[in-house]
Amino acid sequence: MWSIVALLFLSFVAYLFTDELIPKLKELFIKAGLFGIDLCKPTKNKIPEAIGVVSGCIFLVTCFLFIPIAFGNGLMDRAHFPHNEFAELLAALLSICCMLLLGFADDVLDLRWRYKLLLPTIASLPLLVVYYVNFNSTTFIVPWPLRPWLGVSINIGFLYYIYMGMLAVFCTNAINILAGINGLEVGQSVVIALSIVIFDLIELTGDQYKAHMFSLHIMIPYVATTLALFKHNWYPSSVFVGDTFCYVSGMTFAVVGILSHFSKTVLLFFIPQIINFLYSVPQLFHIIPCPRHRLPKYSAETDLLNPSRTIIVKKDMKFLTKLIVNIASILHLVDAKEDGDSIVLNNMTLINLFLVKLGPMTEVRLTKSLLLFQILCSGLAFTIRYPMASYFYDTAK
Amino acid sequence: MWSIVALLFLSFVAYLFTDELIPKLKELFIKAGLFGIDLCKPTKNKIPEAIGVVSGCIFLVTCFLFIPIAFGNGLMDRAHFPHNEFAELLAALLSICCMLLLGFADDVLDLRWRYKLLLPTIASLPLLVVYYVNFNSTTFIVPWPLRPWLGVSINIGFLYYIYMGMLAVFCTNAINILAGINGLEVGQSVVIALSIVIFDLIELTGDQYKAHMFSLHIMIPYVATTLALFKHNWYPSSVFVGDTFCYVSGMTFAVVGILSHFSKTVLLFFIPQIINFLYSVPQLFHIIPCPRHRLPKYSAETDLLNPSRTIIVKKDMKFLTKLIVNIASILHLVDAKEDGDSIVLNNMTLINLFLVKLGPMTEVRLTKSLLLFQILCSGLAFTIRYPMASYFYDTAK
Repeated sequence: MWSIVALLFLSFVAYLFTDELIPKLKELFIKAGLFGIDLCKPTKNKIPEAIGVVSGCIFLVTCFLFIPIAFGNGLMDRAHFPHNEFAELLAALLSICCMLLLGFADDVLDLRWRYKLLLPTIASLPLLVVYYVNFNSTTFIVPWPLRPWLGVSINIGFLYYIYMGMLAVFCTNAINILAGINGLEVGQSVVIALSIVIFDLIELTGDQYKAHMFSLHIMIPYVATTLALFKHNWYPSSVFVGDTFCYVSGMTFAVVGILSHFSKTVLLFFIPQIINFLYSVPQLFHIIPCPRHRLPKYSAETDLLNPSRTIIVKKDMKFLTKLIVNIASILHLVDAKEDGDSIVLNNMTLINLFLVKLGPMTEVRLTKSLLLFQILCSGLAFTIRYPMASYFYDTAK
Repeated sequence: MWSIVALLFLSFVAYLFTDELIPKLKELFIKAGLFGIDLCKPTKNKIPEAIGVVSGCIFLVTCFLFIPIAFGNGLMDRAHFPHNEFAELLAALLSICCMLLLGFADDVLDLRWRYKLLLPTIASLPLLVVYYVNFNSTTFIVPWPLRPWLGVSINIGFLYYIYMGMLAVFCTNAINILAGINGLEVGQSVVIALSIVIFDLIELTGDQYKAHMFSLHIMIPYVATTLALFKHNWYPSSVFVGDTFCYVSGMTFAVVGILSHFSKTVLLFFIPQIINFLYSVPQLFHIIPCPRHRLPKYSAETDLLNPSRTIIVKKDMKFLTKLIVNIASILHLVDAKEDGDSIVLNNMTLINLFLVKLGPMTEVRLTKSLLLFQILCSGLAFTIRYPMASYFYDTAK
């Protein structure tokens, strides 16, 4: 318990340090050419980009400094040092550090998509080896109603490792595509992180006590440094967080989910990201034309955001495109209008969908609405995880 | 033994991949503003900078991919998995990954000196914890002649950890300050790395077999990726390697020295860097004025390099400055000339000293001379380590 108090103290210092360092480093980033223009503002100021690397580095350093405290007992009694737990923490930090590097390289160099998918997979390799040697539990418990057919549990073996590798790729990219308006990337990450912390605190009394302590050791410094970043990234943003932040956050959630064995619960906290991803699939796979940016359109006169749109030329439409547009229109999931020889419809992101359904609104209100949705989804996740799970499984476990 | 064959194969693939990737990524780096102008050339072409991040990333990825092979036996028999050795490798890779990140951040953002000294210290923390729990040997064996006074061995305890932390800082910065002409940073690192590989191969028959296998696991992919980088960085350089490369290399050598328990031998391979560092001290600590660049001066007419110089105004000279200039002049270590109210002397780097002693020469000849010196010093290091050590210690150990 003392170690958590020490960690809270260290994390508080990390918060203060991040909060102080970010404004100091802004000029350095702009000088290095790492800046962007806020497309949803009337002014065209240079806003420093990729500041997630600052909070990410301080997050890592805090975890490093915490190592001797976390393993204090083990260090006193070296014969019984928990090498396996230590290897777990090192693998977790290694994967996060790799994503920090990749994210920063991506912000600076603007890497191709194949690297964005390949590198998180490789970065999660140490994690998978640790999982294999420490647990190698590749069994899913089957819900009650399905047991007559599938038995009590299914061992999916090697497929479980593919699932975990893909989890890392999914988490790192899912946050990255639900982004673009001030404070949204960081805000959603804070909500997810706090949901994980609450879940850990609830489970601390259970028999998976150790796994949830491990999760807290990583999540507490993450929350602290991310809150400091949130302060500077909130509307109107004085810094942008860059891919760096999204990658580090995604990997942190994946790492905690994998090594603390609650990856399915972590995925429950990603409901808005999953919806956004599924909704984006037609554009991501270019079944529907995908412009370079799918940000909402800012109107300087009204200071409101409107959904941005994509254009499909009717005669180029393939069967699959037509099918998807029709189904989505029937389900009221897109706002499609015929315009002479083409069809104009909103870009298929959750952000644009909110604008279609709720009407044009200010940027800050849009961010607040999306974050409220994220919080409601976390509430739903807890409902699925606790009361509902007992209908399908023996216990709440 | 099979694992080494697999590693050689993996490393060969890594060499080919690095060699192919570097030219492809050049434009990406220039577009991102990561380029420099070669000051020792008549042309003013943009040369991509910080390419060390490419070889560094491939080096890390190769090490990741090798993990399942290295621990193949352990993976078959999970009950006897060597968690401590695995933690060692993870800590090593974590420290190297941190330096890769720091180096790249330094190249992009041009960090202050205090971060350059602070961050390697923190990056080596996981390493020191691993050392503590796995070995915690903080004893120096005392050479024969001193034993009547000091005993057979001295346990320096906590100071040993300070020494190891400083080793990481020294190694990362020592290569960085013996640099500036085409191919020198990479060339010296290749010589040091190959010296370590030779040392490992000699010691493979000894009782420290495992430690030297560990060292080879890291050094072989390092040598492969660095050789590919060397090819493109050799005179006339088509890429610059940046601080990234120097930091990764320094940390790699420090990691191997610390975890394989031959840090003193590693330091023996750093003789030219130590000479350069000691020679630079008066300028690094601003006892003698230190211009921003201490590169040799290129003369376009002769295509030769001349030593660059610094100017000391006589009336501003403090006692310590005067003392050092006088001693260095008496020992013929600087070329100092009076020029009216000031003294002009060569910038105190090994590169300039070579030009002072051997006369102006072409860049490629200067690099070759310095690399030859590095090779001779490695020969000297082996002489000290083997024949001479037996005079001072019981065995060659």
